[in-house]
Amino acid sequence: MDKRSHWLLPEGIEEVLPPDAERLDALCRGVLDQFRAWGYELVVPPLMEYLETLLAGTGEDVALQSFKVTDQLSGRMLGIRADMTPQMARIDAHVLKRETPTRLCYLGTVLHTRPRNQGGTRAPLQVGAELYGHSGPESDAEILVLMLKTLQLAGLRELHVDLGHAGIFRAMTRGMKLTPAREQDLFDSLQRKSAAELHSSVRDWGLPAKLGEPLMQLVELYGDAAVLGQARRALAGAGDEVRQCIDNLARIAELVRRQVKDAPLYFDLAELDGYHYHTGMMFSTYVAGEGQGIAFGGRYDDIGAAFGRRRPATGFSIDVNLLFGRAARASPPRSAIYAPVSEVPGLVEMIEQQRRQGEIVICELPGHEGDIRAMGCDRELALEKGRWIVRRLAGK
Amino acid sequence: MDKRSHWLLPEGIEEVLPPDAERLDALCRGVLDQFRAWGYELVVPPLMEYLETLLAGTGEDVALQSFKVTDQLSGRMLGIRADMTPQMARIDAHVLKRETPTRLCYLGTVLHTRPRNQGGTRAPLQVGAELYGHSGPESDAEILVLMLKTLQLAGLRELHVDLGHAGIFRAMTRGMKLTPAREQDLFDSLQRKSAAELHSSVRDWGLPAKLGEPLMQLVELYGDAAVLGQARRALAGAGDEVRQCIDNLARIAELVRRQVKDAPLYFDLAELDGYHYHTGMMFSTYVAGEGQGIAFGGRYDDIGAAFGRRRPATGFSIDVNLLFGRAARASPPRSAIYAPVSEVPGLVEMIEQQRRQGEIVICELPGHEGDIRAMGCDRELALEKGRWIVRRLAGK
Repeated sequence: MDKRSHWLLPEGIEEVLPPDAERLDALCRGVLDQFRAWGYELVVPPLMEYLETLLAGTGEDVALQSFKVTDQLSGRMLGIRADMTPQMARIDAHVLKRETPTRLCYLGTVLHTRPRNQGGTRAPLQVGAELYGHSGPESDAEILVLMLKTLQLAGLRELHVDLGHAGIFRAMTRGMKLTPAREQDLFDSLQRKSAAELHSSVRDWGLPAKLGEPLMQLVELYGDAAVLGQARRALAGAGDEVRQCIDNLARIAELVRRQVKDAPLYFDLAELDGYHYHTGMMFSTYVAGEGQGIAFGGRYDDIGAAFGRRRPATGFSIDVNLLFGRAARASPPRSAIYAPVSEVPGLVEMIEQQRRQGEIVICELPGHEGDIRAMGCDRELALEKGRWIVRRLAGK
Repeated sequence: MDKRSHWLLPEGIEEVLPPDAERLDALCRGVLDQFRAWGYELVVPPLMEYLETLLAGTGEDVALQSFKVTDQLSGRMLGIRADMTPQMARIDAHVLKRETPTRLCYLGTVLHTRPRNQGGTRAPLQVGAELYGHSGPESDAEILVLMLKTLQLAGLRELHVDLGHAGIFRAMTRGMKLTPAREQDLFDSLQRKSAAELHSSVRDWGLPAKLGEPLMQLVELYGDAAVLGQARRALAGAGDEVRQCIDNLARIAELVRRQVKDAPLYFDLAELDGYHYHTGMMFSTYVAGEGQGIAFGGRYDDIGAAFGRRRPATGFSIDVNLLFGRAARASPPRSAIYAPVSEVPGLVEMIEQQRRQGEIVICELPGHEGDIRAMGCDRELALEKGRWIVRRLAGK
């Protein structure tokens, strides 16, 4: 193997270097502090679990995304987490076991066998918040507002939230009594927003117009708040359950706007990203003009059932790498104080005092006296009339 | 599979729950802040790399500890990191490529196929600091002092540092011209501190007494500073290189004591934990009375060579889970403010203001008005004469 390749990283795997790593850490602290102020309690789920546990309640997409290894201790399969939400649901349902609404948050890296998007990461750093134990629109609105405030905290403007509802497609296809393969076909056509494909399926499978027509309408139903009115008319024949989903979205949007007046809410009733475990409202958030979403979330009331305890749940996760990239600003150059080697009393105490005050103090290493500025020092500790003081570095 | 087993975690894999997770986060922030004040720059190395890269410059122990998976994109083997020090060495040597001394630090989880100790974790959270580019005792002393200060920061007292030197065993065995298998035998006997086994080996292999005698002495050379004097006498016949190692340890200890007067330094010249990549002083730090070490480190000047650029290096890592366990204190109960649903103006602003001041404000979720105290609220926002105020929760 060529020596050079020793230091190439696999595709979609990144490292964060100085000074970015410190700014990334500061961003994460700010986000977790905000979650805390909203009553969300931090949880650290494990990086690795039994594969069956990790995949319980999730769809085939998560299974394909997960790296798998054999456990030398138990002989069972282990998985590296590809998604932290199912872990949080397990912890809510089976570890914490509270009866009251429970607000939890997390920060951590997940691994994917393949990137979600061409050229994307396979090791996203995710931060997220989940609200368990409440099924009304108030908790969905809280999650949306917290997501928006978190993106704004990082300095992001010009956001665009695409809101959809997993219940609409689910209610429509339930009436059609399709095989799983056909349901998947419809799902894929909707994701591609292909009216032509939907039309062919409805025709070829001989679906009654009463069921097929509303389905084909879905791909047209995206845009601002006016879409909900159009949807009420276009989907009027699709039944009560579909109408309730539309009402639910309208109510959630109203509650969000009460807290964030200019909330950038848009509707996309064919939007089904993450559908495999979502059951209610669901959303993808974009920075205006970008194709790749920065935050995803929605309601998923059924995951807990896999662990024997169904709890209503709603939440979101943010891709921190993307957030950091969008929030990027030039760092001020490091400003450190250089401390010489000396046995004159008071030096150790002076160094400690400066560090306590938030200064960076870098101690001399014999043989590198000429590297002081290159190490980021612009001041030094020096003896003046027998006392240690901080002064500007002389010269240049 | 039994439903219950869905929520059992694999052996040696843990999760951190509220309120511990928040305290753990605070501990980590404190440690990173201290590293920063000492001039150590944060790096976030990847969780996964090509296996060859991860193992470059390390020994068979790291290879056995690493989980391996096939990369679906390249067809090559990937490894989950089992140790972050080799990653840091790669980043110093081949990414940063600085000529000046470089201080780096990291915080992250590694995974091990098997626990290091019976009942121990397989997913240690490690925090560490590394100093590249300086080979004198000053950098070894700085690393030891920073390690001690970091453990003290977490409230640990009664520490015990076992200092050894990889150069002693290496110099002794070099003269013996042993096969790798026999060298490993001697290494294992020393680790078990078995004078009897060493004696048998020296006799059975017909090693000259001049080489064998000092080796057998090693198991007796542990204790306080007086050990270095004993070692000079007992190992006098072992050659100049061994004497220089002893002098090096003495000088490092002197420099540490200049900064930490009562530094709990002990010497153990048979201590070789981590020997496979260490080249100079090496240490294990214990909380008095405990068998499992909490911090490990030493000098490892050769790892960079695997990446084509040899740089002197010294550093340490701390097991944060153990640190957190020893630092554990009871958390004060959560004290949050409850905010009702209301359209009376000023509420949204009042909530934001309280959160900015560091308060936790939990918003009402209809249907859960009776759960306020269970959610940790001891105060509430209430209207008094048309203004929103914070007041104690009435009753109990």
